[in-house]
Amino acid sequence: MIAKTEAAGDTGLLPEVLAFSSSLALDLALVREDLLGSLAHLTMLSRQKIVPAADAKTIRAGLLELWSESAAGRLALPPEEDVHMAVESDLTRRLGATAGLLHTARSRNDQVALDLRLYVREQCAEVLASLGGLLELLATRAEAERDTVLPSYTHRQRAQPISLAYWFCAYGEMFARDVDAFAFALAQTDAMPLGVGAISGTSLPIDRETTRGLLGFSRITANGMDTVGDRDFALDQAYATTKMLLHASRLSTDIIDYTTTEFGFAKLDGQIACGSSMMPQKRNPDVFELARGKSGRAIGNLTGLLATVKGLPGGYNRDLQEDRATILETGPLARGVLSILQLAIPRVVFDRERCRAAVEGDMMQATDLAEALVKTGIPFREAYGLVGSLVRRCQERKISLADATVELARDVDPRLDASVLAAARPLDSVGRKISAGSTGPASVEKQITQLRAHAVRARETAAKVPRLTALFERLKDAAL
Amino acid sequence: MIAKTEAAGDTGLLPEVLAFSSSLALDLALVREDLLGSLAHLTMLSRQKIVPAADAKTIRAGLLELWSESAAGRLALPPEEDVHMAVESDLTRRLGATAGLLHTARSRNDQVALDLRLYVREQCAEVLASLGGLLELLATRAEAERDTVLPSYTHRQRAQPISLAYWFCAYGEMFARDVDAFAFALAQTDAMPLGVGAISGTSLPIDRETTRGLLGFSRITANGMDTVGDRDFALDQAYATTKMLLHASRLSTDIIDYTTTEFGFAKLDGQIACGSSMMPQKRNPDVFELARGKSGRAIGNLTGLLATVKGLPGGYNRDLQEDRATILETGPLARGVLSILQLAIPRVVFDRERCRAAVEGDMMQATDLAEALVKTGIPFREAYGLVGSLVRRCQERKISLADATVELARDVDPRLDASVLAAARPLDSVGRKISAGSTGPASVEKQITQLRAHAVRARETAAKVPRLTALFERLKDAAL
Amino acid sequence: MIAKTEAAGDTGLLPEVLAFSSSLALDLALVREDLLGSLAHLTMLSRQKIVPAADAKTIRAGLLELWSESAAGRLALPPEEDVHMAVESDLTRRLGATAGLLHTARSRNDQVALDLRLYVREQCAEVLASLGGLLELLATRAEAERDTVLPSYTHRQRAQPISLAYWFCAYGEMFARDVDAFAFALAQTDAMPLGVGAISGTSLPIDRETTRGLLGFSRITANGMDTVGDRDFALDQAYATTKMLLHASRLSTDIIDYTTTEFGFAKLDGQIACGSSMMPQKRNPDVFELARGKSGRAIGNLTGLLATVKGLPGGYNRDLQEDRATILETGPLARGVLSILQLAIPRVVFDRERCRAAVEGDMMQATDLAEALVKTGIPFREAYGLVGSLVRRCQERKISLADATVELARDVDPRLDASVLAAARPLDSVGRKISAGSTGPASVEKQITQLRAHAVRARETAAKVPRLTALFERLKDAAL
Amino acid sequence: MIAKTEAAGDTGLLPEVLAFSSSLALDLALVREDLLGSLAHLTMLSRQKIVPAADAKTIRAGLLELWSESAAGRLALPPEEDVHMAVESDLTRRLGATAGLLHTARSRNDQVALDLRLYVREQCAEVLASLGGLLELLATRAEAERDTVLPSYTHRQRAQPISLAYWFCAYGEMFARDVDAFAFALAQTDAMPLGVGAISGTSLPIDRETTRGLLGFSRITANGMDTVGDRDFALDQAYATTKMLLHASRLSTDIIDYTTTEFGFAKLDGQIACGSSMMPQKRNPDVFELARGKSGRAIGNLTGLLATVKGLPGGYNRDLQEDRATILETGPLARGVLSILQLAIPRVVFDRERCRAAVEGDMMQATDLAEALVKTGIPFREAYGLVGSLVRRCQERKISLADATVELARDVDPRLDASVLAAARPLDSVGRKISAGSTGPASVEKQITQLRAHAVRARETAAKVPRLTALFERLKDAAL
Repeated sequence: MIAKTEAAGDTGLLPEVLAFSSSLALDLALVREDLLGSLAHLTMLSRQKIVPAADAKTIRAGLLELWSESAAGRLALPPEEDVHMAVESDLTRRLGATAGLLHTARSRNDQVALDLRLYVREQCAEVLASLGGLLELLATRAEAERDTVLPSYTHRQRAQPISLAYWFCAYGEMFARDVDAFAFALAQTDAMPLGVGAISGTSLPIDRETTRGLLGFSRITANGMDTVGDRDFALDQAYATTKMLLHASRLSTDIIDYTTTEFGFAKLDGQIACGSSMMPQKRNPDVFELARGKSGRAIGNLTGLLATVKGLPGGYNRDLQEDRATILETGPLARGVLSILQLAIPRVVFDRERCRAAVEGDMMQATDLAEALVKTGIPFREAYGLVGSLVRRCQERKISLADATVELARDVDPRLDASVLAAARPLDSVGRKISAGSTGPASVEKQITQLRAHAVRARETAAKVPRLTALFERLKDAAL
Repeated sequence: MIAKTEAAGDTGLLPEVLAFSSSLALDLALVREDLLGSLAHLTMLSRQKIVPAADAKTIRAGLLELWSESAAGRLALPPEEDVHMAVESDLTRRLGATAGLLHTARSRNDQVALDLRLYVREQCAEVLASLGGLLELLATRAEAERDTVLPSYTHRQRAQPISLAYWFCAYGEMFARDVDAFAFALAQTDAMPLGVGAISGTSLPIDRETTRGLLGFSRITANGMDTVGDRDFALDQAYATTKMLLHASRLSTDIIDYTTTEFGFAKLDGQIACGSSMMPQKRNPDVFELARGKSGRAIGNLTGLLATVKGLPGGYNRDLQEDRATILETGPLARGVLSILQLAIPRVVFDRERCRAAVEGDMMQATDLAEALVKTGIPFREAYGLVGSLVRRCQERKISLADATVELARDVDPRLDASVLAAARPLDSVGRKISAGSTGPASVEKQITQLRAHAVRARETAAKVPRLTALFERLKDAAL
Repeated sequence: MIAKTEAAGDTGLLPEVLAFSSSLALDLALVREDLLGSLAHLTMLSRQKIVPAADAKTIRAGLLELWSESAAGRLALPPEEDVHMAVESDLTRRLGATAGLLHTARSRNDQVALDLRLYVREQCAEVLASLGGLLELLATRAEAERDTVLPSYTHRQRAQPISLAYWFCAYGEMFARDVDAFAFALAQTDAMPLGVGAISGTSLPIDRETTRGLLGFSRITANGMDTVGDRDFALDQAYATTKMLLHASRLSTDIIDYTTTEFGFAKLDGQIACGSSMMPQKRNPDVFELARGKSGRAIGNLTGLLATVKGLPGGYNRDLQEDRATILETGPLARGVLSILQLAIPRVVFDRERCRAAVEGDMMQATDLAEALVKTGIPFREAYGLVGSLVRRCQERKISLADATVELARDVDPRLDASVLAAARPLDSVGRKISAGSTGPASVEKQITQLRAHAVRARETAAKVPRLTALFERLKDAAL
Repeated sequence: MIAKTEAAGDTGLLPEVLAFSSSLALDLALVREDLLGSLAHLTMLSRQKIVPAADAKTIRAGLLELWSESAAGRLALPPEEDVHMAVESDLTRRLGATAGLLHTARSRNDQVALDLRLYVREQCAEVLASLGGLLELLATRAEAERDTVLPSYTHRQRAQPISLAYWFCAYGEMFARDVDAFAFALAQTDAMPLGVGAISGTSLPIDRETTRGLLGFSRITANGMDTVGDRDFALDQAYATTKMLLHASRLSTDIIDYTTTEFGFAKLDGQIACGSSMMPQKRNPDVFELARGKSGRAIGNLTGLLATVKGLPGGYNRDLQEDRATILETGPLARGVLSILQLAIPRVVFDRERCRAAVEGDMMQATDLAEALVKTGIPFREAYGLVGSLVRRCQERKISLADATVELARDVDPRLDASVLAAARPLDSVGRKISAGSTGPASVEKQITQLRAHAVRARETAAKVPRLTALFERLKDAAL
């Protein structure tokens, strides 16, 4: 049951109403953020002489105590409406009326905005660090599979031969865009909200720039009415997460398909996929199915948050409390999938023989042949037609295009001579590609280098974000 | 950490993979459903002589033990991949190899389908019972406010006078449709999945009709491949919940607006809205803001589940495990809002004077005047124009339409005589409405009666659903 | 440009505002519904003596003229805010002031509600008729493929042998649930809204039951404030459509996979899939990819409509106009996919040899073997373990389970004798299944019969709905 | 009906299948983008000597002809599967086989990627330009309303007095974030896809950097497999649009509420809101309701596109064609709302007297009073309590806080002296705020300046984007 407290004043609220409206069960995850916000606010109040230094010292000691107990897993906050009230109430229990000084020039509206921004900032940084790791891994796997040739697909039909390196780089490119998206979300989150009060600011001589500096933000928010009702930063994170999980979902579909008996391009290591004891040959790709399933979850979380914000009046509305479940789930959701991909991808073992066999037994090099004709001066659409005739002839004879003899080819059209026909060697197809962004070796080399650069960028962006533990070290004995 | 177990066989899975893929944290909420399913399955196996009666007795004793411990809050299941494995593993610990008999002709694919259906069925029944209460409440409030007149709104502009009873009935109608939607979801859920095995059925002589009867379902599912991959029933519940919360969101917006200082039509009792100790006059409508916010959450949950299912191959895919969070949240979400509305609505106190004053000071009875002219034989569009002229004249004189004198009216047009002008009395406007579905007293009376009938229907539908506790009573000593 | 008209009164609206707010471009699709509503309303007004019979005749002649011109594609309505104003304005141009009589006791709020319900009702009926056809088709295809054996899948890994008939029945079951959902949407739509006016009803002696009967609805809406703000019926249709397209998306994924070179279970006929002229061997499954893609679209349409309604005040709000694009797209979306499936499915040609070969070369009958052991009295978990050992032994020798000799089996465990080993014949696996809902022949026979019954039900439900053309025949010379 | 063409080869496709799969109805909107892409591709092919200069000239003349006819509204493309085939087919009709040269080293997969990026880029630029105009407008309106005082709201309850300028700035801040989001979407779109072919690149000596330069992109896409399956840029635009419309929806709710009879803070000019001729006093805020409704639509479009992409295999899948409706709707949706807001906002006329009256008659300055006490050294929570007592006393006497006499105040607590009580003058409340981001005059001045800077930034970003018409001028006589 939720008690009435000093902070909330005498309340005749029905206990059911308190239970319905309390966010404490979720908010408890934000206790570190809340304490850091209080430490920074207190330091500022003291420096501005709004709170006497002696009182500030007392209050800081109380906050440090709470932090230690929380870190040790020993903190049992009283049942209040939210984490802010719970901390205030606990602090009052410890320090008496002095605790009340901490709440000068602050309201729960700006407090929760700060806690959420600190939380989202930390999560974005962790995601970026993890994306860096994933990109590095994909680059490494690409490097090792430069010479593995397999079919590429359009419409899930075999299209053209590519190197497996190229396939890894394709997913690398998607996750590289996610670095951009998370860097954007991070930049949007990077504004310090504390000090706007309930909505309109204060007549007390606070200094928001001091608080900003202490908490490691780049700027302060510009307008309090906007600040207390703004959850755009959370939407940005939810959106970046959703798009990243879409990429993971596509990678997962490819791996799920490639590890079927039918494709047989890859096998999952027993460390990431268990068979049943009855069917030990089975290796279910649960990890990838779950990653794909979670992309649906992310879409839902994003949509829900968008719908919650839609149509609200300006300023703070309690509807916004429904942001909590999504915000708290989003970071771990993103990080969980990124971590598991980094564990799982090295344990997807490609079967180079089967990959190559798939390329050899098909007609995927038809385009190469057409391009070889174009090089001899034949217009593309005509070349296209000639190759079509040859393919049809091969089909009739039930041979693959690679097995077409010069005689057969010349019979279709004399311009299909031996030198042109050389372009029908499927395993050479990849090597012949010379355009930028292609599966050709030179381009793939460049792609790998770029992925590494993206990895570095991701990690550097992450590294610049002050983490909660670092902030604590800075704040615990900052000059008052 | 998640251990390797008898059930799963030797596993070399990475602990991180087990942690990522385990659904146990959520599944634990389904332990009662899982035990009931096992009790029914066991009873059937015994009756079909697939499991010897003596063994069946032993196993049932073990299951009953688990139920008691669970009911007493003392059950600590081992860390397994899901609740089914956890129960199996714990049972094996207690009973040894005999426990293994229980898993004959069953797989986790049909087991989870059963647990989820039992859970959703119970939740739908509870929602229906609660909807019955809400409809009854709305009917009662409508009855008490038959004579309270207030403006109705279109475009959030005052439109025509209505009775407050009519306003309550409008929301009653919406929630009455929710009874239909939940009854539909319930009917869709009401098919017994157990016995289809992993996907294709079994060669053992099971009798699914027995299991169905024991678990109180109306029918068995028709095709196993469909059954193990089907979450339509959960979608149906999520959809019904979303629509119901949309209705709650609209009711909430009305109450939030009506309790502003500006509208002033109603006040919230202190039991459901606390002021701050500094601004004791404030009564924030948090309860209604949260109800509205939760409709966003419901939209997200529905969308997420739809997206998760989209594009999956037929049969069971592990992606479906991502249904868990939504399914477990949906029932409580619906019930939480319904409960709080039933507590809060009686504590929304309308200010009849302010409501009436709003009607009197306006021009909302213009349509009544036009209809009075129509009754004298003037075509509607012409009547419409005449009234427009009169309204304009009143505006110029800054008087309300009710204060227009016969002279003024006649000056606009002689057909606007005293008998027609009588229709301009705003407080009579409601009483004059005679059409079915209108705010007129006769129609409202009928609407109230209908709401009561919907309430009865909701409760009766709910009452027919066998609850988990009742099933347990039936199963704990069913003939083996 | 949108003109000012008699109906709207003098307007000084900016043309950009008229352009922004006009729904005419979409509404034009509703002109038939609008005219039918007017015909029914007029008939009622005349019978109630609210409009003189002579005038009613004149107006009806005008409406019939509009209908004919519309049917002939010659109707060019004036640029108005919406279809209702456009029809009114055009009628006034033809008939002068008499046209104004038609608008007695009616407002655009109830008029649009009627038009949309008539439209949605017709679409639901068409969808149901088409679902009937699809179910019939699936039953027929199932019948023809009773003896085709192929793998079933869980986690996209081969699971157990099934008949292709069973696979068709699985999808049949899904679409059979869609019959329920569309029948529900239809029932929810089946309430006649006209006569509630702008929001509160009327003081004129209209008879909504007459209008209801003329338009073939089962009941009238109960409360006008609810009626003018209610789009639940459109949500119900959008939801039913979304779920149906999810089923189509899963069917599509299966077919897309089965027609890959790798699976090779089926081929698409050239009538539904064209190759390029260069790669004539290619048969891209575009039709199924598009059907799957459209399920995403449906999810979006549903979500958008839910979000639009969320949080609106009671009564009519212009936000609701944003329902138009979704409502008008939803019916054709559903029908388009259903039609194309009925064209395409007969042209998916399964390769029975390749299907059978996939079953024969695998270990999918392991469960059968375990069940054979269970029948000899061995507990399931133990049987499970024994079979596992045998499978492992086969893997080591690189033979399939079907090729395991009695010696090899007995070497694993003496209970694995010849009679038990007989259960390892993969092609017999399907035939051995005897449980209800299984892939066994008896159950599949029953499933096919049920699908046919669902097809009949779908068509009968559709047939009961009065179509627009039938309504016109009824209304064009109804007694005035 | 859709014909078979040179380009597609002989086709036996059912006409229904062609109709179902054709995107031409939507694609036609992309004809300019398609022609520009062809002009740039042709120029590159010619410069690289892949196409002889003479042929290139002929083809360019044909393309220019198509452009002119399209610009003049005279272009009637043949009924093909998509705009690319339609253009190719028409060009072939005009030029014969030479036209075929244009398709060298190009596929529809990269062509559609280019067309969509050109389209989205142009739309983002237009939105940014329009956002610049809106920000400028909000700054100007804020400047004019520096001295208008009105209540701010939290929970839709009056909170604290603010200036109307501050309210305008709050929305300005939201739209300023939209500048960031659209700039991000623009940057993500700014990569040139042409030249990656169907998926793997080409063996012909194309130069993608040349094409990139000609089309004014900053970079080329890095990996073809990613490129042909990537619609992230469209998601980014859809997301930015959705968030922007959420801001518009909140602004709309505020204006809808403020223009109710009950709030009465503002009136809509007759140019943007028409009354009916019967109720000329009415001014329905349709424009703002529609803007709010469209935010729901945007949420749906975004969600639908996310769901469509979810779970697709890598590379191109035809599902992606379902991007078309969303992409083509999104830009106009955003621009339509931005344009109408710029027309409508200047025509929302605030009633300064009623705004001020709302502030004077309330207790919203309670916080000011508490802060005045804090300045005298009283801890905040104690000050908070004292003010609460005073407010209660005023309530009992039914006077506003501003009317509390020094005697009454002192009677509550002697520290509530005359100098403290001076802080209870509501109209001074705004002026007393001194914190950064507050409603105080200095902060608001800074906010207005910042909004102007954001406006400049938006316009400058927009101006850098080469528009289609400018590209045409560049390409129509580029050196071949």
